[in-house]
Amino acid sequence: MFSNSSVSTKLFFALNSLQHRGQESGGMTVSDGEKLIRKKGQGLVIDIFKEDNLNALKGNLGIGHVSYTASRGNQDYNVEPLMGFAKKNEFSIAFDGNIVNHQILRTRLEEEGIMFQTSIATEVILFLIARYYNGYIVDAIKKAMKVIKGSYSAVLLMNNKMVAFRDPMGIRPLTIGYNDNDVIVASENAANEILGMTNTRDILPGEIVEVTKDGIKSFFLEGPKKPRHCIFEYVYVAREDATLDKVNAYNFRRRCGEYLYLESPCDVDLVVPVPDSGIPSAIGFSQEGKIPFATGLVKNRYMGRSFIKPTQELRELSVKLKLNPLKTVLEGKRIALIDDSIVRGTTSANLIKRIREAGATEVHMRITSPPVCYPCYYGIDTPSRKNLIAANLSIEEIREKIDADSLAFISPDAFQRATLIREDRYCKACFDGNYPVDPIII
Amino acid sequence: MFSNSSVSTKLFFALNSLQHRGQESGGMTVSDGEKLIRKKGQGLVIDIFKEDNLNALKGNLGIGHVSYTASRGNQDYNVEPLMGFAKKNEFSIAFDGNIVNHQILRTRLEEEGIMFQTSIATEVILFLIARYYNGYIVDAIKKAMKVIKGSYSAVLLMNNKMVAFRDPMGIRPLTIGYNDNDVIVASENAANEILGMTNTRDILPGEIVEVTKDGIKSFFLEGPKKPRHCIFEYVYVAREDATLDKVNAYNFRRRCGEYLYLESPCDVDLVVPVPDSGIPSAIGFSQEGKIPFATGLVKNRYMGRSFIKPTQELRELSVKLKLNPLKTVLEGKRIALIDDSIVRGTTSANLIKRIREAGATEVHMRITSPPVCYPCYYGIDTPSRKNLIAANLSIEEIREKIDADSLAFISPDAFQRATLIREDRYCKACFDGNYPVDPIII
Amino acid sequence: MFSNSSVSTKLFFALNSLQHRGQESGGMTVSDGEKLIRKKGQGLVIDIFKEDNLNALKGNLGIGHVSYTASRGNQDYNVEPLMGFAKKNEFSIAFDGNIVNHQILRTRLEEEGIMFQTSIATEVILFLIARYYNGYIVDAIKKAMKVIKGSYSAVLLMNNKMVAFRDPMGIRPLTIGYNDNDVIVASENAANEILGMTNTRDILPGEIVEVTKDGIKSFFLEGPKKPRHCIFEYVYVAREDATLDKVNAYNFRRRCGEYLYLESPCDVDLVVPVPDSGIPSAIGFSQEGKIPFATGLVKNRYMGRSFIKPTQELRELSVKLKLNPLKTVLEGKRIALIDDSIVRGTTSANLIKRIREAGATEVHMRITSPPVCYPCYYGIDTPSRKNLIAANLSIEEIREKIDADSLAFISPDAFQRATLIREDRYCKACFDGNYPVDPIII
Amino acid sequence: MFSNSSVSTKLFFALNSLQHRGQESGGMTVSDGEKLIRKKGQGLVIDIFKEDNLNALKGNLGIGHVSYTASRGNQDYNVEPLMGFAKKNEFSIAFDGNIVNHQILRTRLEEEGIMFQTSIATEVILFLIARYYNGYIVDAIKKAMKVIKGSYSAVLLMNNKMVAFRDPMGIRPLTIGYNDNDVIVASENAANEILGMTNTRDILPGEIVEVTKDGIKSFFLEGPKKPRHCIFEYVYVAREDATLDKVNAYNFRRRCGEYLYLESPCDVDLVVPVPDSGIPSAIGFSQEGKIPFATGLVKNRYMGRSFIKPTQELRELSVKLKLNPLKTVLEGKRIALIDDSIVRGTTSANLIKRIREAGATEVHMRITSPPVCYPCYYGIDTPSRKNLIAANLSIEEIREKIDADSLAFISPDAFQRATLIREDRYCKACFDGNYPVDPIII
Repeated sequence: MFSNSSVSTKLFFALNSLQHRGQESGGMTVSDGEKLIRKKGQGLVIDIFKEDNLNALKGNLGIGHVSYTASRGNQDYNVEPLMGFAKKNEFSIAFDGNIVNHQILRTRLEEEGIMFQTSIATEVILFLIARYYNGYIVDAIKKAMKVIKGSYSAVLLMNNKMVAFRDPMGIRPLTIGYNDNDVIVASENAANEILGMTNTRDILPGEIVEVTKDGIKSFFLEGPKKPRHCIFEYVYVAREDATLDKVNAYNFRRRCGEYLYLESPCDVDLVVPVPDSGIPSAIGFSQEGKIPFATGLVKNRYMGRSFIKPTQELRELSVKLKLNPLKTVLEGKRIALIDDSIVRGTTSANLIKRIREAGATEVHMRITSPPVCYPCYYGIDTPSRKNLIAANLSIEEIREKIDADSLAFISPDAFQRATLIREDRYCKACFDGNYPVDPIII
Repeated sequence: MFSNSSVSTKLFFALNSLQHRGQESGGMTVSDGEKLIRKKGQGLVIDIFKEDNLNALKGNLGIGHVSYTASRGNQDYNVEPLMGFAKKNEFSIAFDGNIVNHQILRTRLEEEGIMFQTSIATEVILFLIARYYNGYIVDAIKKAMKVIKGSYSAVLLMNNKMVAFRDPMGIRPLTIGYNDNDVIVASENAANEILGMTNTRDILPGEIVEVTKDGIKSFFLEGPKKPRHCIFEYVYVAREDATLDKVNAYNFRRRCGEYLYLESPCDVDLVVPVPDSGIPSAIGFSQEGKIPFATGLVKNRYMGRSFIKPTQELRELSVKLKLNPLKTVLEGKRIALIDDSIVRGTTSANLIKRIREAGATEVHMRITSPPVCYPCYYGIDTPSRKNLIAANLSIEEIREKIDADSLAFISPDAFQRATLIREDRYCKACFDGNYPVDPIII
Repeated sequence: MFSNSSVSTKLFFALNSLQHRGQESGGMTVSDGEKLIRKKGQGLVIDIFKEDNLNALKGNLGIGHVSYTASRGNQDYNVEPLMGFAKKNEFSIAFDGNIVNHQILRTRLEEEGIMFQTSIATEVILFLIARYYNGYIVDAIKKAMKVIKGSYSAVLLMNNKMVAFRDPMGIRPLTIGYNDNDVIVASENAANEILGMTNTRDILPGEIVEVTKDGIKSFFLEGPKKPRHCIFEYVYVAREDATLDKVNAYNFRRRCGEYLYLESPCDVDLVVPVPDSGIPSAIGFSQEGKIPFATGLVKNRYMGRSFIKPTQELRELSVKLKLNPLKTVLEGKRIALIDDSIVRGTTSANLIKRIREAGATEVHMRITSPPVCYPCYYGIDTPSRKNLIAANLSIEEIREKIDADSLAFISPDAFQRATLIREDRYCKACFDGNYPVDPIII
Repeated sequence: MFSNSSVSTKLFFALNSLQHRGQESGGMTVSDGEKLIRKKGQGLVIDIFKEDNLNALKGNLGIGHVSYTASRGNQDYNVEPLMGFAKKNEFSIAFDGNIVNHQILRTRLEEEGIMFQTSIATEVILFLIARYYNGYIVDAIKKAMKVIKGSYSAVLLMNNKMVAFRDPMGIRPLTIGYNDNDVIVASENAANEILGMTNTRDILPGEIVEVTKDGIKSFFLEGPKKPRHCIFEYVYVAREDATLDKVNAYNFRRRCGEYLYLESPCDVDLVVPVPDSGIPSAIGFSQEGKIPFATGLVKNRYMGRSFIKPTQELRELSVKLKLNPLKTVLEGKRIALIDDSIVRGTTSANLIKRIREAGATEVHMRITSPPVCYPCYYGIDTPSRKNLIAANLSIEEIREKIDADSLAFISPDAFQRATLIREDRYCKACFDGNYPVDPIII
């Protein structure tokens, strides 16, 4: 982001509002106008940045990142932002997405004699930009964008500017907000809102936005393609207050719940959401079905990070701690349990077991997205096909496995309609296998 | 708690499940059968206890505590459990509540030549117990209970036993859970449940429970009084899965919402809760009124602890970060905003202002408890009378101040009925000024 | 200390200069004129106090402490300063020494109904002072001093003054330094010197010094006794730049080395000290004997705190890391090894073994204090008699056990003369068993 | 290092013994046979590595590093070891020295399209090795060694081997130690000794040593050059127990002291070293001159790291804390002050001032190395020429500036003789400007 005042504390708040997108590590790079200073670490944003090190990150331009370390092999070198130095220029980059030709590009570069210092795609992108850079950063980014394939929303920092860019199909979200003093680019508009940005819009597919103290300039990669926004953002990833590419996550989820009831009603006493992403859908399901909505599972808000798990017994305790069935609500009741998706099926099975133990007499599971049958190659952390329960079992077999009284998924058609966008401009590859960018599996 | 296996990791999980009762400091004392070892610290339970220090806390008996440092003057010596040594005995205590004759007892003891080492009532209780102890801890506790007046739920640890005791009116909650291997006493049953206790009950008003490796023994202070459970636990303090003294917090809140609608309906498009405690009430209000329930405020789950607040601007950011109005839900809508209480009125005013900015056309505030007109002397952190808005302004004046289109509180009668208990066995002093134990204001 | 400017950072530096007196825990209490604020912790002073918490300790009056946790049972409650509240007064105390009638006083008080909250004598002293306090703190301290027996140098903090007091025989050291703006009381003058105190003197045996913003007042307990300063301070405890009760540690050690040579010369090639306390003595021995002085053992300066010791092998590594024999110096040489004392004998045996492995052909051990035959009851951490090698074996037996070619201790007479003070005003109980204050062994 | 047992704890101890070579940051990379895991951080080795993260660094092969962050711009990306990935190989490197053609190589590579991620030469070396690697790591290293110019001692880790290599002139030290189970390569033999290596030797100039579980193989770059070992290692950098390239630091320093007396005697009462590096020289000076040796400056061992320095006053306190003049030793005495070198002159001036304040009547400064007139380009952190006092002032002018009664440096001839090596195989560029490798100043 850019700010007329010091940027690091504002970035701290912005990163905090995006903490749900990654809780295990984070970092920030700030430019003081002459050079970049970076600070990275493990844990939540509030654990990494303290008053003294925020003060040390002086400057009006900065970028930040939060991530799951797990998806990065728990290696410190994979924590972003990355740094790059080339021809007297300093670069830093933070990235969300996945580059499907990452390994091919990397192998080709390695054969050419390039050494990498992380195992993440971000480094390849930064490398290409730095290599193409010839005084005009937007040109360098355009060249890099022509080479990399996949999903990406990224911010690049130099000593006097920040440049944001989004892949030509807009798979991963990216927004920009500004007011008289500040400009912020972020994955979700929550960051913009808490910083009081009066204007907020999506960065468009293929758009490149350059932010300097003099203002914002927009550029486009030639030949825009049909957008293919990740629909799973609305299902699970984004916070419910996110409005990404004109679709609001909360409303989308609510409508999914409504349509799901219309398609697969059930005769129950209560509609119970799996928090947090299941809540809006359960509201919709409940309202459409005129069945009372109820909080039947209580979430422990203070156990974000997994911790000590020496024995199997304690591992189970740790899971229990996160979600506690509310006996007095569930006892003697037939319930519809609303969840956003079933991936491996193990969580659902465990949950239904505990809900039954708490006294529910029937558990009808309703899933507000279609069966996940294909892995994601664009940045969502899904397991391989053999671990996707819906890729291997029929719906009836899944129902049996998770021990539900009935099980239904939303239909692909209703799912699309829930966006309220006529045209299908979404990537739904995890559901239908139609990969907008060919995955390259090595 | 007692466990046939090591107690410290289980206590860690139990304290975690009670983290909502105090997020700023915590501690644990464990007995290895011969001596007590204590570890205290600042922050969340997961920040204070790490694998190595949990391993160092060896033993089968232990107690723990979480607290708000703020209510303790931010002084390290006020973090519990406290330790006491007397006549070759080691004691440790953790306490919830407030002793109204604390200052009188303390002054009297000070005049007698006693020095204190903290500024909290817990120390006076521990002192009395240690003084009265003559080989029979239950007798000592009984003697102390006859002297101290107020609300208290406490656990006392010695090298070979743990004793829990609750004040004669049962003002503060206390539960006990057990299975074949473990016994746990906790403020709320969530702790028991996540540890898999198959039997759970309330510790009764005036009950004293002694837990050793040989089992559980129950004692009673003579002359049980009419119970006066803190009703505010159900309103706000306890987590919604708590069932305390036969009343479940979730159901109570839901019923309050229902009755509130019946008493003070309003013609709106949406019912919006202030999370988290307003959620069940909003569900009840919505269902009774047949008005759609909606999530209109999104809570940031990762900003539990307040942090850096150098400037007014950043202080406001920090508040914004905690609760973000959901524009797409609120825009153009008339809403009923359901909150558990109004204390100072500043939070409500700020919230309504931001909800209007997000586009709501009308905001009708509904409060699921009566006006808070009197300070609590039994452990709830309320300000003095002059800062209680309802003690100083009429409802209409409050409405004007917080800029609501309408404002209504639940009636005392409906509030009582929401417990489903016929008899009024509750302390509602903060609402009606009927203090079950005379507050002694010095 | 008192300072016209903020006291906490100066205390930080002072505590750092006294770090050699205790490396495992520390703390500080500061008065802002109205109330006391305390901060305690584990580790070195630089680990406990950071910029932010020093800033939070605002005030012009403060006290601090460093200690060995080990001697305090590794219990957090035994870390000083302690706090006390009595009759609207706040007290904090930091203490060095040992009270021989501590257990008697404590037992008596316990029988009277007093509970303690630590296991250290400091608490008993603070308790007595608080009990006797009646508006005149010096009177209260005098009364306490009449009751407690043993060695003590202590500083007591109230909201508007600091009072230092020293036992009537001056067993433990205590100095005071002042300039126009600051007054500091410390165990050793190093603290005064680094803070630039232009005037420094010993606090006298039985002296009580009251420090306020208005200056320093001195009081005396009636009936001063013959001083019995701990001679072991000069031998080992104090840093070599300490001048305590007119005797400088460096010069004392050097003279002990000289006299030791005169009494027990040996025909060797090199004089090698065991660092750090053996260095001045080895210089004296070398100069008197005209035998070259050499550094034969190199100390690792970065391994102050013991750390991980999972296996016996690693435990030995940890010891090795602290002291490395310098092969090129020792090889083929006959050496005189100068150490300050032999307590258990195990360290000497280990060291001589490693010196021989490094190639020394003869190792003649010379000890600059007489054999330690009696435990200390005044604050030095010595083992019980059965673990004192000199209490159980003859000098020849010790020599055999540690495998030295010869072994000699300084004579008691020379040892006394090394102080350059005619009169024997020292406690040498660990050497001769003449306890100036009857030890009370329970 | 390689170990048949787990390597991380042994590396921890080894790094600790080399802590004097860099106190501000450190790191370790360990191979579990399949992949490398790295952990880096700020502070002392004991602060960075705790029991749990040492346990996480599983494997039999590992490398580590300690460094001054200051010389690395306080940037986290410059903390070593670095990681590199190329053609399915993982590399990690730790490096001591300086590459004089670093900027030229880097610029050339940058022009070729290479991006760097740190600002240190280590990265260029690693890059070249990774680029040249074709299955034979020793060949790749040889190729890299032909390109890089300057001083270097480095260890490279792959998943199944560690390779150490030293520049063809052996400017920076490097030793190897081994026993039946372990092999360790380290800058100084202290690391080998504390780990109990029974065999220790120097790695020779231009030597490349490959260590696998099967043993040690040695290779040489063709055409060995005349060695030019850094003589400043013996003067100041190495710990006194280091024996590097057949010369022992302690003995060298002692001889320098002897020769210095012979060349520049002075009529004084005491010989006082500036600790720690001045001690052996002061011993030599004292013995040759038959003038008593004395500890006149006491070093605070617990203030290794600089800390808070808000004001000029506190900054001075921090300096004072490190070295305290021993009044009782210095008072009324004429002293010879022995230091290893004069760089900027400010420290000497400050020290002499404080020694005079402590009562010394005359201060004759004797420096055990020749005047430092030229900056080092091979890894020693010296300032630029304009800040080297001896490059700008005559000896008499320096004497005046530092206010010494007399000042003398050792002669270059005596300095060389102190090595006891006939042939001049040393780099003395900082003294005589004869740079063995042309410095390239950009």
